[in-house]
Amino acid sequence: MATHEFEPTRFHGTFGRHAPVLTVADGDTIRTWTVDAAGRNADGHALADGANPLTGPFHVDGAEPGDRLRVRILEVTPNRSYGFGRASLARNVVDPEAVADLEHEPANDGAAWHVDPVAGTATLTRPHGPLAGLTLPWAPMLGCLGVAPADGEAVSSATSGRHGGNMDVRRLGPGAVATFPVFVPGAALFFGDAHALQGDGEISGTGIEISADVRVTVEVQKGRPPIVWPRGEDAEGRFTMGNARPLDQATQHATTEMLRWLREETGLGPAEAGLFLSQTARYEIGNVFDPAYTMVCRVPHDAWALLPRGGTA
Amino acid sequence: MATHEFEPTRFHGTFGRHAPVLTVADGDTIRTWTVDAAGRNADGHALADGANPLTGPFHVDGAEPGDRLRVRILEVTPNRSYGFGRASLARNVVDPEAVADLEHEPANDGAAWHVDPVAGTATLTRPHGPLAGLTLPWAPMLGCLGVAPADGEAVSSATSGRHGGNMDVRRLGPGAVATFPVFVPGAALFFGDAHALQGDGEISGTGIEISADVRVTVEVQKGRPPIVWPRGEDAEGRFTMGNARPLDQATQHATTEMLRWLREETGLGPAEAGLFLSQTARYEIGNVFDPAYTMVCRVPHDAWALLPRGGTA
Amino acid sequence: MATHEFEPTRFHGTFGRHAPVLTVADGDTIRTWTVDAAGRNADGHALADGANPLTGPFHVDGAEPGDRLRVRILEVTPNRSYGFGRASLARNVVDPEAVADLEHEPANDGAAWHVDPVAGTATLTRPHGPLAGLTLPWAPMLGCLGVAPADGEAVSSATSGRHGGNMDVRRLGPGAVATFPVFVPGAALFFGDAHALQGDGEISGTGIEISADVRVTVEVQKGRPPIVWPRGEDAEGRFTMGNARPLDQATQHATTEMLRWLREETGLGPAEAGLFLSQTARYEIGNVFDPAYTMVCRVPHDAWALLPRGGTA
Amino acid sequence: MATHEFEPTRFHGTFGRHAPVLTVADGDTIRTWTVDAAGRNADGHALADGANPLTGPFHVDGAEPGDRLRVRILEVTPNRSYGFGRASLARNVVDPEAVADLEHEPANDGAAWHVDPVAGTATLTRPHGPLAGLTLPWAPMLGCLGVAPADGEAVSSATSGRHGGNMDVRRLGPGAVATFPVFVPGAALFFGDAHALQGDGEISGTGIEISADVRVTVEVQKGRPPIVWPRGEDAEGRFTMGNARPLDQATQHATTEMLRWLREETGLGPAEAGLFLSQTARYEIGNVFDPAYTMVCRVPHDAWALLPRGGTA
Repeated sequence: MATHEFEPTRFHGTFGRHAPVLTVADGDTIRTWTVDAAGRNADGHALADGANPLTGPFHVDGAEPGDRLRVRILEVTPNRSYGFGRASLARNVVDPEAVADLEHEPANDGAAWHVDPVAGTATLTRPHGPLAGLTLPWAPMLGCLGVAPADGEAVSSATSGRHGGNMDVRRLGPGAVATFPVFVPGAALFFGDAHALQGDGEISGTGIEISADVRVTVEVQKGRPPIVWPRGEDAEGRFTMGNARPLDQATQHATTEMLRWLREETGLGPAEAGLFLSQTARYEIGNVFDPAYTMVCRVPHDAWALLPRGGTA
Repeated sequence: MATHEFEPTRFHGTFGRHAPVLTVADGDTIRTWTVDAAGRNADGHALADGANPLTGPFHVDGAEPGDRLRVRILEVTPNRSYGFGRASLARNVVDPEAVADLEHEPANDGAAWHVDPVAGTATLTRPHGPLAGLTLPWAPMLGCLGVAPADGEAVSSATSGRHGGNMDVRRLGPGAVATFPVFVPGAALFFGDAHALQGDGEISGTGIEISADVRVTVEVQKGRPPIVWPRGEDAEGRFTMGNARPLDQATQHATTEMLRWLREETGLGPAEAGLFLSQTARYEIGNVFDPAYTMVCRVPHDAWALLPRGGTA
Repeated sequence: MATHEFEPTRFHGTFGRHAPVLTVADGDTIRTWTVDAAGRNADGHALADGANPLTGPFHVDGAEPGDRLRVRILEVTPNRSYGFGRASLARNVVDPEAVADLEHEPANDGAAWHVDPVAGTATLTRPHGPLAGLTLPWAPMLGCLGVAPADGEAVSSATSGRHGGNMDVRRLGPGAVATFPVFVPGAALFFGDAHALQGDGEISGTGIEISADVRVTVEVQKGRPPIVWPRGEDAEGRFTMGNARPLDQATQHATTEMLRWLREETGLGPAEAGLFLSQTARYEIGNVFDPAYTMVCRVPHDAWALLPRGGTA
Repeated sequence: MATHEFEPTRFHGTFGRHAPVLTVADGDTIRTWTVDAAGRNADGHALADGANPLTGPFHVDGAEPGDRLRVRILEVTPNRSYGFGRASLARNVVDPEAVADLEHEPANDGAAWHVDPVAGTATLTRPHGPLAGLTLPWAPMLGCLGVAPADGEAVSSATSGRHGGNMDVRRLGPGAVATFPVFVPGAALFFGDAHALQGDGEISGTGIEISADVRVTVEVQKGRPPIVWPRGEDAEGRFTMGNARPLDQATQHATTEMLRWLREETGLGPAEAGLFLSQTARYEIGNVFDPAYTMVCRVPHDAWALLPRGGTA
């Protein structure tokens, strides 16, 4: 149960079977940091090219294909005083008839935010229009979190899949636990693309993009039924994350995984599990911007607590 | 500002330009009731055929095409002690590979619930398996709410559109206000398909289906910019409802309508309005079952309160 | 087997249960004409408002819900010398990033075509740019063809469904036969929106829009298994038409209907019918513009001729 | 302009920056062979694991990012006497309500075909039901064809993207030319997954799967505007291939690429290019089975020949 302090020096643009930067044991904690989505660190130095450069991969000893890797997020703390973002909606989230209107806007240099770690807020400093000075409470999170995918693929940190990746789920902040299927020996854990704040859907294509100090604990689970899509838990409930286009398909993945989870823990048949889910489920969009969209299916803890226990968990 | 007690005797299967059952004035309140999704009333008598028979249409004097009709929901109270639902997920909300598994279940008679108006709960009474006795707090709402559509269409109460309809948005309960575009003189307001409870997405195709006592106040708004998709307000925030398939398109409609609302009230340009929305928006699925799906885009009140005022509202 | 000469005087904007304009017998032929998509007749007089005003409904004696109505298209002949269209692609058929580029074009008055019934060609007369004089062979067809829908709906002639409607399938020209499910007594046949020419997808939202002389023969089929989506036959093969958004769902409808047709005529099980279809099917887009898109699934006659016979047809 | 005889000994499961198996010059021809989708060669020996093992990558000297790589397919000849396939439709191509029906079929061992290179036909030898002996003319093609993708990705040969890949376009057979964007030095050309025959959509998930002798000529094009999605030409016309889910998005990609091609060669503005395309385009589905679907947008040669010349081509 060691804690590793890790200083990253190189960053990856894909989730894949790259050489590990550090090997850790089951139960260990990693304390490190991430560059922002543009590759800049706490001092504003550009250390990497491309979108969403990743810290990792971390090799978790003993993790084997078919296992599950649980990642407990202990800390995601913005480690500098400014963040940035796009200052316009993405063209794919508005009606095609409204796209041209987005374009009529004078070209802009994007949004800039002052991030205050004491107050836990972000304040808009650019553009200098009527919104200047807007102050929102922060809610730091990891836009990218996942493992090496199956089949020898190396998947861009701009998108997501069964391995996790750039899911942009705002719940993946301090206190949350995410669970991934393991596809390669050692799992190959990566993370990055921290946001000081992000709305559902990441509909401008950015949150408030920030470098961050990150601390996570890893745990290998063996001998459990396989999971197909990433799962999570936070203070409000349990959730699954389906990654695909269109949202309909992401919804199918997230719902099917939640059904699998329910049945695994309760032993309920598909009809009863479905009956429960149909009255208690919540859906949220992780992102509707990346090449694969992310849909979150969630069951609040108070509803889950009403379930019988009788499954394999 | 009269209050009308209205006893419905016939019910419609479409939102359309049918003969009004009652004419009311701007500001009036209507106190009436709805049959359940199968056409049964508080006594369990079947009064109508087909899915989601509607109470209405109510003609609102003075409402003209281009106006807005605001409907304040004062009451949706289940008025009998049982509700029903399907006891399986809909086939379209799970992965195609998981559909056959739904079918392996023995045929069932659906779910039955005991609804307790004192406790404000629903308790599962059928099927008699491990979930029997599951008790959930109710959250009554109107699955169907809307006006006559444009272009002479008569649209089934099984689906939705710009006119509202069968949106199955769980927020449309007591205390909420919904606003619709007016397409025909008098607006032609309809409602029905009350649920004692419904999860996001209505993923079994039903909530807990119930007959209900309903009380609403209507208000005509003139001289405002036109709205394109229905809007709502409740205790938590403001929301818009986009109705289409796939969810991607419903998301575009809901987002574009929220952008329109933001700009109308603040005078912000599209880039700044988008910047705000991208950090504050929430998305929820109304339903992912009906012929048109419904996506809800929501901004919490505390975020909205930070906006400048300078628009036309 | 009478032939009726019918002079239309009023036109409908919806497929619905409107009062019949003419009652015909099973096997009869109707000779009439249609206004263009903007309601103008052979003389250029505007006779109707709205998009795609329809000729009909024709009541076919003896047609009952559950029957099939076969419509043999004997003639669709442009009956004036000019057609019109939009001179730009629809915004929904290009990448969101390319929409703004469509807008940079100077506003235009649309396209105008000279239609030559002797040569059977259409020649571009406006805009006056480098394409002026472009001459294409015509291929006249009916953009709108269908019956009254189920459940009391009245569905806009801008869209389509199980009842047919505005499918914009270029194969629905002279020589083709279309078959529809009957939902109401008398079927209530409508048609309109003739095109002198149209590419797959109707990607500008128009073909070469024209008024036309139309001649069709109607036939009622009883005692056959129900059809769910419209079917067609032409010189090249058999085809089914699925109407929905997104194209994926339209594809599912068209494929499922073709599977149904194959099995009905051959008695093959689903695996063998699927095996055949997977090596012989062709897919084409009817339209990717209207509220419901249309996908065509087609099997060429020479492939169909190889099938065993043993079904119920 | 050399011709290289190349005997493959290892095969890749991804399109990526793997070590070249052979370096060729611009204009050279490669004569080689491919294993079938299950990794079996002409003798039926399994030489590789996984789906769609690829022959390559071939390094084309001088190809640089931003260039185009043209691949002329001279030969795709099945080199053994049997092919195989699935004997059922994929679950995602039928209505969700029809999926269970596919499952009611007794489990089967798939389809087997006798391939006759003299007659140029494929004859069904399994299952032994009413379709046994069905003989179809072959139309050999490459299911997989493409280059290494951008951004360091290694993309599974089960799917497709801007780099081409598993597009399953039946037009990619002898006589066709495919053009790809170059993302890495040397382009890294791969191909495999030959089919003796395949319907539009590959709706069972397979064509008639075969090992094949393949001969292609490669050509590097420099100094041309970049292409975004793969393009092709065959005896019937020019076509573009958009790869994405849902089909709507694949359609947007294919249409936008065709618009780009038209404008590049003619100098037409977007409105006129769109006007032309809207009356002449054809759409076909490459596949509606793989993780990314493929839509083909096509313009027949006789229509293209009517265009003015004035572009940069």
